[in-house]
Amino acid sequence: MPGKLKVVGFGPGGKGDMTLRAIEAIENAEIVMGFTTYIKILQEIFPDKQFKSTGMTKEVDRCKMAVQEAATGKEVVMVSSGDSGIYGMAAITYQVADELDADIDIEVIPGITAASSAAAVLGAPLTHDTALISLSNRLTPWDLIEKRLDAAAASDMVVALYNPKSHGRPDLIEKAFKIMGKYKDPNTVVGVVRNIGRKDQDSWICSMKDFDFEKIDMFCTVIIGNSKTYALDGKMITPRGYEIGGE
Amino acid sequence: MPGKLKVVGFGPGGKGDMTLRAIEAIENAEIVMGFTTYIKILQEIFPDKQFKSTGMTKEVDRCKMAVQEAATGKEVVMVSSGDSGIYGMAAITYQVADELDADIDIEVIPGITAASSAAAVLGAPLTHDTALISLSNRLTPWDLIEKRLDAAAASDMVVALYNPKSHGRPDLIEKAFKIMGKYKDPNTVVGVVRNIGRKDQDSWICSMKDFDFEKIDMFCTVIIGNSKTYALDGKMITPRGYEIGGE
Repeated sequence: MPGKLKVVGFGPGGKGDMTLRAIEAIENAEIVMGFTTYIKILQEIFPDKQFKSTGMTKEVDRCKMAVQEAATGKEVVMVSSGDSGIYGMAAITYQVADELDADIDIEVIPGITAASSAAAVLGAPLTHDTALISLSNRLTPWDLIEKRLDAAAASDMVVALYNPKSHGRPDLIEKAFKIMGKYKDPNTVVGVVRNIGRKDQDSWICSMKDFDFEKIDMFCTVIIGNSKTYALDGKMITPRGYEIGGE
Repeated sequence: MPGKLKVVGFGPGGKGDMTLRAIEAIENAEIVMGFTTYIKILQEIFPDKQFKSTGMTKEVDRCKMAVQEAATGKEVVMVSSGDSGIYGMAAITYQVADELDADIDIEVIPGITAASSAAAVLGAPLTHDTALISLSNRLTPWDLIEKRLDAAAASDMVVALYNPKSHGRPDLIEKAFKIMGKYKDPNTVVGVVRNIGRKDQDSWICSMKDFDFEKIDMFCTVIIGNSKTYALDGKMITPRGYEIGGE
């Protein structure tokens, strides 16, 4: 019987935002693997479970280990925070299993992606068309990222930024705001959530022109509104277009 | 004490893809409200629960009822399929509560959005930048939707189409493909999932040029790949850019 490899998104980090399928997959797995930071989060939720962690930039090696373990017939879980299918480990898992010609069943178990969990904290900023764009240029040429930021802003989409900052590229978010600022009004509402779902979760709303780039780090998700987005009692609202008042 | 209104996304439809927070919110609610189709799904999962349903185009009325019930001090849940914050009821709930000047606490509980759950069924099509675009022109001018489709395709984003078809607008998806076809190769991989998470779930992968518009209805989610997306043993893979082979 082929082994089973489940690629599980565990959402923002609390057990409450995990799906039943994700919880069951982790509880039933013989091995749970993932990036060190994620494993630390899961060890608090599943203290009796055995985990294997690897460093951040070892994605391919981690995948190979997971695929090889599964190929021996074990039930293996590979975890990603958020949704395993959105900037997560789902694609690379299929690719590595193909490269190794491994006889395993792969199942992707989706989770709540950072844009969704950040939006819920901020109010309702994603109720209209939204572009999910990562500012990480580790694997994507920056000119392609620029092109997408430009296109999303020019067509008045809400933009949810993943990986807004890292040590190696602290200025990319400022560059991204400059590109979007060609089309988006300086008063466009922006929302930030830091450490979503963790104990020290923090969030704030401001305008594009008052945005403080220094406050952003790799643990933030940043959502830039469209031209209709507004602030309401500290919440960020992107209306869908319903007539609210009167009959 | 102000009443509590929780806007809950229950994901694609099965209990397994619901989060613990969503399940607990529904179990603890005094009233659960939602569009008839969603309530029927939830009645199967929570047979002992009392529900109130309203028709599809009565969103504002449904929200007013929910806000008014919560304002009496009751714990009320308003449900959306997928994520309540992505084309869901979150924004309109805040807007209606503001309009009615209701003294209630609103909490948005995110769920697995259709793009995430469809992606998990199809393989891993959303591992790179993605635009979420609804083809419903009930509340959004069609020229704005066209502009967003054009921008997303021109910048080589993956595109996840929500509401790809309805009785009133059967030809919009064909128009959308024509616009994206200005930039996307005819061989671009497309994936479709119909009735995600339900008993009669169906899914298929094809190329843009072989896409059968007749097979699409309002219960489908359609994902159009970027220029790197490929088909692998019946799965749809959008690579992130990792070097898979060798060292």
